Amino acid sequence: SGKCTIVGRGAKTIASHAALINGSTSHALDYDDVNRRLHGHPTVTVAPVVLALGEHMGASGRTVLDAFVVGTEVACLIGSMAGNGHYAAGFHATGTIGTFGATGAAAKMLGLDSEQTRHALGIAASQAAGLKSNFGTMTKPLHAGKAAMNGLMAARLAARGFTSNDSIIEGPQGIADVMMPGFTSGPATPHPKGYYSVEQTLFKYHAACYLTHASIEAINALRSEHDVGLDELKSMTLFGNPGHATVCNIPNPKTGLEVKFSIRHCAAMALDGADTSALETFNDANANAAKYDEARSKITFEPVESMHSMEGRVAIELADGRVLEQSYDASIPAQDLNEQAAKLTAKFQSLCHPAIGAERSNMIHQQVMNLESADSIDALMKAAQ
Amino acid sequence: SGKCTIVGRGAKTIASHAALINGSTSHALDYDDVNRRLHGHPTVTVAPVVLALGEHMGASGRTVLDAFVVGTEVACLIGSMAGNGHYAAGFHATGTIGTFGATGAAAKMLGLDSEQTRHALGIAASQAAGLKSNFGTMTKPLHAGKAAMNGLMAARLAARGFTSNDSIIEGPQGIADVMMPGFTSGPATPHPKGYYSVEQTLFKYHAACYLTHASIEAINALRSEHDVGLDELKSMTLFGNPGHATVCNIPNPKTGLEVKFSIRHCAAMALDGADTSALETFNDANANAAKYDEARSKITFEPVESMHSMEGRVAIELADGRVLEQSYDASIPAQDLNEQAAKLTAKFQSLCHPAIGAERSNMIHQQVMNLESADSIDALMKAAQ
Repeated sequence: SGKCTIVGRGAKTIASHAALINGSTSHALDYDDVNRRLHGHPTVTVAPVVLALGEHMGASGRTVLDAFVVGTEVACLIGSMAGNGHYAAGFHATGTIGTFGATGAAAKMLGLDSEQTRHALGIAASQAAGLKSNFGTMTKPLHAGKAAMNGLMAARLAARGFTSNDSIIEGPQGIADVMMPGFTSGPATPHPKGYYSVEQTLFKYHAACYLTHASIEAINALRSEHDVGLDELKSMTLFGNPGHATVCNIPNPKTGLEVKFSIRHCAAMALDGADTSALETFNDANANAAKYDEARSKITFEPVESMHSMEGRVAIELADGRVLEQSYDASIPAQDLNEQAAKLTAKFQSLCHPAIGAERSNMIHQQVMNLESADSIDALMKAAQ
Repeated sequence: SGKCTIVGRGAKTIASHAALINGSTSHALDYDDVNRRLHGHPTVTVAPVVLALGEHMGASGRTVLDAFVVGTEVACLIGSMAGNGHYAAGFHATGTIGTFGATGAAAKMLGLDSEQTRHALGIAASQAAGLKSNFGTMTKPLHAGKAAMNGLMAARLAARGFTSNDSIIEGPQGIADVMMPGFTSGPATPHPKGYYSVEQTLFKYHAACYLTHASIEAINALRSEHDVGLDELKSMTLFGNPGHATVCNIPNPKTGLEVKFSIRHCAAMALDGADTSALETFNDANANAAKYDEARSKITFEPVESMHSMEGRVAIELADGRVLEQSYDASIPAQDLNEQAAKLTAKFQSLCHPAIGAERSNMIHQQVMNLESADSIDALMKAAQ
């Protein structure tokens, strides 16, 4: 009873349900993109909305892409005004602020005028929800799906004349007052250089907590430069933000899921040349492997107050006495977009091939790359169904 | 594509959409019931869920009533633990805490066990939303509909194995920490006498802000005892909680909607014998009538710190020199249930007759009164469709 694809399920439904389900599944593996301005994951609440509405309305690829950018900018703008206080207070920004992103994207798709858009954002504010204390449960990815569904509903209601408080973000007892300690308004205009938040989105190339990425990248760089491996390890020190100790420093992981949040285990696997971009590397056998257990005992995490959460520095002492050092900053968006495209394509293929085969994976990839000139997104969604 | 009635629209839909729509319309007139423990309106998030699920599952009237009581108790228990801090902070308890009421009702209908129910409440916590700053807009009643829909979704997901943090109410960074300043846990067990919150629900018999009710009742009592009217008024003083000044003391209302929040205008209409139980009394003509404008100039509101928000005291000075005084406490649940039933029936008929005629109104009323012994709620919902 709908035109909108539930991705990977061979079924269609109404737009709001497609947004709910695709948003939730997009976030379930914790392998999606990151934007520091949002303090969360921008695409999982925005893409499901533009795809569902794109199918529902028969929109062109360009229309869908434009709305995706608008939704991302709205979420990141409000996220940057909220700062870190909202997340630190216990709200899951991907769910709460992501609702505004979904709303902005849907408002653009539906062609709302500025007054309708204000009302849509006001309706969204009354639906913005998601608690960090549900991390580690199935409800975490549900936050993304609900944000997508709620934002879509907000824009559709506004399109039909539904009203809200139109200064609900920074007005008295608006969402900033009530849920965003430390909120500061602005900037609300584009920056002359590199303002667009969508250009600042970061991608995960390792199927682990983003805070482990800098260490893994530094170790990979040393491995490829010096051709070293796990059997030559005498000791290793990982330097990073003190926050790592509470987020991703599980000392003795017993499951693949725990390995994702065990920076010392991830470092051991990286030095061993394990494929940290593959989901299946994070399995229970690797969590309990004797070689990694032994390696962990040689690895120390050293907190450094001055380092930010996405930086890493590694010092490896080898059996032959050499000491190798390397730093990496995972907060810097890619400068070489061709290289980024190649890495994202490799990640995409590595995730899709086992699930749906090479042929369909290649079809989806081709449709995505041609999206800007596509008359509709039907071919893309047919490939992804 | 569903079995669940959209009340008054002659249409059916799926359970979640029926809960959304019926919940929103139930709260749109601001004429629904009140429970002090919830700091809000208990029925508008619970009844739409038990009715929708009742139709969906083919449940008996007794099953629906049992679940209604459970949902009301859950909402009022969490509301009483939250105290007034949650509402004062800017959250609309009917929407936020109402989500738990809807969840509890749906959990009871679906027969969830205690672990599933804990997960359902955890899923609900991540969806609890609603900002008081949307009062005065269409989004206020949407809060009730969304709470109903979200609570229903939470229970259905938990029934199918979805997980959440199962100590999300009082656990670290749970909803109490994040959204309920001043939260105190307990009591969690029934009180030997009169604990059940559903017995403490208060009803509106006047189509205005609940805080005007005590004054209106006091004036009505003086009118019937002394047979006085507006033309004999020399002056009137209304004594009440200082909070009235910011909630229901619009000095010179220009619209019927503003009259609902103008205690001095309501008092003038009550002394005039206007039918304050009828929605249509709160029209723009009455707002601008010269006789009420003149009467307002003779009426003073006097704040009294020691009075609670639902108390009122009235002193009327008449042209012949007599002074009449009367108090009323609108926070005390009805002691005479037969009298309450008669008043609620009169309110029901006065609302329904103009919209759907006497015959259908009577059918609905009869089905409601027989609900406890009904094999299903189909006859009720057919009458209400």
